[in-house]
Amino acid sequence: MVEFVNCFEVPAGGEDAFFAVWEKVNTHMRGRPGYLGHELFRSLSPQATFRFVNHARWESVDAWQAAHDETFRALVADAPFTSTPGLYEIVHTVTP
Amino acid sequence: MVEFVNCFEVPAGGEDAFFAVWEKVNTHMRGRPGYLGHELFRSLSPQATFRFVNHARWESVDAWQAAHDETFRALVADAPFTSTPGLYEIVHTVTP
Repeated sequence: MVEFVNCFEVPAGGEDAFFAVWEKVNTHMRGRPGYLGHELFRSLSPQATFRFVNHARWESVDAWQAAHDETFRALVADAPFTSTPGLYEIVHTVTP
Repeated sequence: MVEFVNCFEVPAGGEDAFFAVWEKVNTHMRGRPGYLGHELFRSLSPQATFRFVNHARWESVDAWQAAHDETFRALVADAPFTSTPGLYEIVHTVTP
């Protein structure tokens, strides 16, 4: 399993436009093989550097890469926000 | 409950120095009232913008704020990395 984290810088007042694009992309991704779920985080403060953060899980790096197809590229072509996507592994965890 | 997300920019080769500071801060935080757990993410690529991302959960905003005491401030005073901390709520989630 691999963890995907994407931090979004969204202009003030641009939350609805962000979510409209994000939801379309997410619907596409959820239909691809190897998608294991996600949580979308919204900052409590509208002034946060990253207004939204998405954390998703995929079965493998290959499955994640394969999902970035033509449909994906078309959906994000005019996205009204900047993103910082990356693949991660969990290296430290505690649940008291 | 409130979600805390912190994205860390760590200079290449600075992973051990980052983790040494992060672990001390995390040990402090884990002992504060209202701490509910965390996962520390490390990027698969050393070139990722955010080499580490921490996701923690707290019982409340007040508990999170109270943990940022003198001990915390001393621990992060000379941290060899930049961080982008913020409080979040989960607004969309799917687990297929």
